[in-house]
Amino acid sequence: MTVNLVILAAGQGTRMKSDLPKVLHEVAGAPLLVHAMAAGAALEPARTVIVAGHGADQVTAAAQAHDPDAQVVIQSEQLGTGHAVAQARDALAGATGDVIVLYGDTPFIRPETLQTMVAARADHAVVVLGFTPADPGRYGRLKMAGETLEAIVEYKDASEAERAITFCNSGVICAGAEQIFALLDQVGNDNASGEYYLTDIVSLARAQGLSATAVACDEAETMGVNSRADLAAAEAAFQTRKRAEALENGVTLQAPDTVQFGWDTWLGRDCLVEPYVVFGPGVTVESGARIRAFSHLEDCHVSRGAVVGPYARLRPGTELAEDSRIGNFVEIKNAVVEAGAKVNHLTYIGDAEVGAGANIGAGTVTCNYDGVSKHRTVIGAGAFIGSSTMLVAPVRVGAQAMTGSGSVITRDVPDEALALGRAQQVTKPGLATRLKQKLREAKAARAASTTSGQKD
Amino acid sequence: MTVNLVILAAGQGTRMKSDLPKVLHEVAGAPLLVHAMAAGAALEPARTVIVAGHGADQVTAAAQAHDPDAQVVIQSEQLGTGHAVAQARDALAGATGDVIVLYGDTPFIRPETLQTMVAARADHAVVVLGFTPADPGRYGRLKMAGETLEAIVEYKDASEAERAITFCNSGVICAGAEQIFALLDQVGNDNASGEYYLTDIVSLARAQGLSATAVACDEAETMGVNSRADLAAAEAAFQTRKRAEALENGVTLQAPDTVQFGWDTWLGRDCLVEPYVVFGPGVTVESGARIRAFSHLEDCHVSRGAVVGPYARLRPGTELAEDSRIGNFVEIKNAVVEAGAKVNHLTYIGDAEVGAGANIGAGTVTCNYDGVSKHRTVIGAGAFIGSSTMLVAPVRVGAQAMTGSGSVITRDVPDEALALGRAQQVTKPGLATRLKQKLREAKAARAASTTSGQKD
Amino acid sequence: MTVNLVILAAGQGTRMKSDLPKVLHEVAGAPLLVHAMAAGAALEPARTVIVAGHGADQVTAAAQAHDPDAQVVIQSEQLGTGHAVAQARDALAGATGDVIVLYGDTPFIRPETLQTMVAARADHAVVVLGFTPADPGRYGRLKMAGETLEAIVEYKDASEAERAITFCNSGVICAGAEQIFALLDQVGNDNASGEYYLTDIVSLARAQGLSATAVACDEAETMGVNSRADLAAAEAAFQTRKRAEALENGVTLQAPDTVQFGWDTWLGRDCLVEPYVVFGPGVTVESGARIRAFSHLEDCHVSRGAVVGPYARLRPGTELAEDSRIGNFVEIKNAVVEAGAKVNHLTYIGDAEVGAGANIGAGTVTCNYDGVSKHRTVIGAGAFIGSSTMLVAPVRVGAQAMTGSGSVITRDVPDEALALGRAQQVTKPGLATRLKQKLREAKAARAASTTSGQKD
Repeated sequence: MTVNLVILAAGQGTRMKSDLPKVLHEVAGAPLLVHAMAAGAALEPARTVIVAGHGADQVTAAAQAHDPDAQVVIQSEQLGTGHAVAQARDALAGATGDVIVLYGDTPFIRPETLQTMVAARADHAVVVLGFTPADPGRYGRLKMAGETLEAIVEYKDASEAERAITFCNSGVICAGAEQIFALLDQVGNDNASGEYYLTDIVSLARAQGLSATAVACDEAETMGVNSRADLAAAEAAFQTRKRAEALENGVTLQAPDTVQFGWDTWLGRDCLVEPYVVFGPGVTVESGARIRAFSHLEDCHVSRGAVVGPYARLRPGTELAEDSRIGNFVEIKNAVVEAGAKVNHLTYIGDAEVGAGANIGAGTVTCNYDGVSKHRTVIGAGAFIGSSTMLVAPVRVGAQAMTGSGSVITRDVPDEALALGRAQQVTKPGLATRLKQKLREAKAARAASTTSGQKD
Repeated sequence: MTVNLVILAAGQGTRMKSDLPKVLHEVAGAPLLVHAMAAGAALEPARTVIVAGHGADQVTAAAQAHDPDAQVVIQSEQLGTGHAVAQARDALAGATGDVIVLYGDTPFIRPETLQTMVAARADHAVVVLGFTPADPGRYGRLKMAGETLEAIVEYKDASEAERAITFCNSGVICAGAEQIFALLDQVGNDNASGEYYLTDIVSLARAQGLSATAVACDEAETMGVNSRADLAAAEAAFQTRKRAEALENGVTLQAPDTVQFGWDTWLGRDCLVEPYVVFGPGVTVESGARIRAFSHLEDCHVSRGAVVGPYARLRPGTELAEDSRIGNFVEIKNAVVEAGAKVNHLTYIGDAEVGAGANIGAGTVTCNYDGVSKHRTVIGAGAFIGSSTMLVAPVRVGAQAMTGSGSVITRDVPDEALALGRAQQVTKPGLATRLKQKLREAKAARAASTTSGQKD
Repeated sequence: MTVNLVILAAGQGTRMKSDLPKVLHEVAGAPLLVHAMAAGAALEPARTVIVAGHGADQVTAAAQAHDPDAQVVIQSEQLGTGHAVAQARDALAGATGDVIVLYGDTPFIRPETLQTMVAARADHAVVVLGFTPADPGRYGRLKMAGETLEAIVEYKDASEAERAITFCNSGVICAGAEQIFALLDQVGNDNASGEYYLTDIVSLARAQGLSATAVACDEAETMGVNSRADLAAAEAAFQTRKRAEALENGVTLQAPDTVQFGWDTWLGRDCLVEPYVVFGPGVTVESGARIRAFSHLEDCHVSRGAVVGPYARLRPGTELAEDSRIGNFVEIKNAVVEAGAKVNHLTYIGDAEVGAGANIGAGTVTCNYDGVSKHRTVIGAGAFIGSSTMLVAPVRVGAQAMTGSGSVITRDVPDEALALGRAQQVTKPGLATRLKQKLREAKAARAASTTSGQKD
């Protein structure tokens, strides 16, 4: 069955107290909207329409960064969910199959749940997603008769008996691509809020003799975000799930609650992750790698047997080959570190290749930026870079070559050569003591002059 | 109404197992005593008297560091709360209005609560602060008749009916500045502990036909600290409150439980704080700034749009202007970083000014200490400091100037000039390989000599 | 009474999804097996026998690394606990006294519990360790009559009345060193799993008129590890206990849940540990030391009054003397830092001695590795090492000596001498501006050439 998505993303989210549109706030490094899009994308939709409003430019940019084929339509006035979906009419002109309406601030609906909704469409014109919350509170109630959804009753309109129903409306809805707009045409705004409600299509469909049903999901899937506290709760829920999955897959998390995952982090079996590790988006770690404490990884790949950290920062474009070693206070960016190479201490490697088995001394810097452009550094296999070597890019150090510690390397070093740039050490007996004495006298003189100055 | 504070801070806190006086243990970077003083200070007291005993010198120093006008009186023997307050008699000679008695180990009484107590003094001679704990346990019970406090009944003296009372005594009390000492004169120590109890003034007042009442506060306000576990619990309670406030104010905390606040941390709307961030005291962060993971800030100011971290340490006296950028493994101390300047990697900036738009290369150090004194470094707007530049202070690098990587800069660099201090690179073909061979032979020789030595 | 230990450690732990044998997964930096061995070692056993199977080589290595006297026997087929213990027969030939059977995946049995079991052996042939879980679930039930253990009833064989028993079998058992093997000879495998069950010796003993009893322990002691989630739960339980102990001993943990302890971490009274600190194994910290946020310590000793961090990494072999100071982004390895010495910023000190009161400038590196061997650096008392000094080991800087910042020190520096290796600063007026202009032109040319290339 062909599926089309409409994702409502026009709200401002006043309670977020933010200049950023609500759906662009992030969970696990991805905007809420992207979570919703990713859930829907599992159905391989023919068309995806985002209904934007507040901050439409930013929302458009984020949506199309994630899916260049997504269409964005603008809801310039916020007149209710029915009105919002109606904005997608032109974008869905000629579409066949189903339309599923999702919410950009509801990131956790599972693809399996959406598939169940689509399957239920075989027998019903409209399918609503319901859930049974621990506290039904003021949610709309789904009045079922067998598998037939008889009505969605708003809490304020509900009788005592109806309020006793615990099966509630999530707002997610699925209907025929042609039918949904016909039904929306009939939705009115004759209610307290003066808004057009999407859910009204259920009673309209029923009045025309069409059947409706509801499908159930876990309450956790319907978690919405309306405040920063909600956002933090959504993040926590996501993290809890990812941590449990990692443990289940054979990853050791020494202290699971202290590891923050990106939305798409992938860790192989027998990886070990120490406490206080942050994974941004785009990280894959092969089996048997060890991520030590206080490490921070974004958009990078760590191969089998590599050891990272503690206090290692892998920035986007880092590729660590097997058994490589990145140690403390080391930053790697847009660089390949080949098998068995070691970058153990206090180093910045950016825009570079580090050859297999190379050893990079403490304090080394690839000087990749000249104030105008970025340049590359290439370090050969088995090279030995002395401590505090400045590699002024573009520059190449050959295989098995060495650099003397404290050298500034501005020209290429051939294979097996030693390159040095170093002033000779000069040692002046007794001078440290005399110098210190002078510095003390100067300090005393300054103090005296300041004091006398104050007296004036 | 004029208010005077007496804060009891004489106890040793045996259960803390500490050489530090109990009231000087810290919550959120401020001593417990300072929390109590700050709560009371909201009433703009005419006089503040600290009753010190154990570690009186340290307590005096801490109290007067926070409020130079605070008077400290010494209770040399610990003979009970009544005796402690009596030590303030001379310090409050001639004082008018009210006296509120607070406790240096009870940091969380809200100023609003104290104001309610003062208001209740209009109709009553003595006002006691009560609370209704989840578990009343062995607290003294407040026996009320309407709004009249009839008696404070110690648990051990209470009847079954009295023990069923859940409204309990916090020990915080408010009475007339003149009357309180007259009442204390009548307090005896004819009890099991042989101590003079402040709470006895209620029954003494009642016996003289004076009226007493009690005002209620939340149990959380009366949380006292008697052990390290209590201290950790107080810290946790404080952090929970600050985190909720930040979320409420429109700050994103990705993982709220992983952010530690200082007692006075202020974060603007749309700030984003990543996991594992520690704020010491004195930090303000303007709207829209981003504090990345593993950052540590103390006594500093971060302006709008600045990005800090990951792994950035801002020490006291750091001032970051708009859109500046402090990156990983960077320490800034007593320095201004002007708008748009970047200090991205592995750098120490201390006692310095970094001009607008300047770019500081990795591994740069402001050599601010000569072994005797500290000196300043000034870097001009738009300057480009090459990687691993040593800036030997006092020194000035001009606007739009550059330094070559690996240079030691000891003399001022004019605007737009390039300064270099660098040995020429010498490249010796094949020497790396020959050198490594020699090192291997030397190692083998050492090993052989060690082995032969062991055989002797 | 002589005691012998048999520790069962042959299982693969399929649910761990790991290539590592289950008992070698670690809690607080020590393998599960070592925790079990350490508990048993408190009884000063005459012999300790580890029954290994899966990954026997690794298990043997780990067991003997912890206790060189431990014997390891191999259970090549996994035919049940009775069969496993039977493999220890030869290793215990001629042993007298008791045998206690422990499990390598059950790390938390307390030594006191084992002592209680041994004491109970005075009156009983077989002593079983029982516990009363919150949820008895499918555990075997211990059927007691007074202090007599009548039978261990497997859950699936239990009547309703027997299932109502809440006292359950932990599997830990104690019997006479000679008798246990005679009983095991009679254990059959005529059951659904076809396995030989150690617990069958209870009924066999009873059938011979021997008496059995059970001793109770806390449920927490019997926590076993079968999955990564279990491992994380065991780690969490261990950490909770260590944190509470530290607080009880007069240590301040500002946020106890954010401090990770090693299994043998020892912290003196009035230590202060800030949030986000990781202790590996082998760390002792004397009274009054302060471990600041984001620090990482392994196998090291911190003396009274020392301050470590934030962001300090102390690696194995670090010895910090009184009042020494290790600051941010500093790594120390196999080195002694004498009293009052300061290593405040961005430094690597490895294989070195830092004399009393010495001051090490930011960016200093002990270049201890020449590509083949490691060498030592010795820095004298009161020495002042300028920022970014490279100390090329083996090298010695004398007492009260100084090095100029940016120097590469390859030869020893006498006491009180100043050593410098530094190119003179050359300043070229206007060159920065001209250089930048050239770089911009070059960039523009490259861009033009790339664009024209793309067009081709």
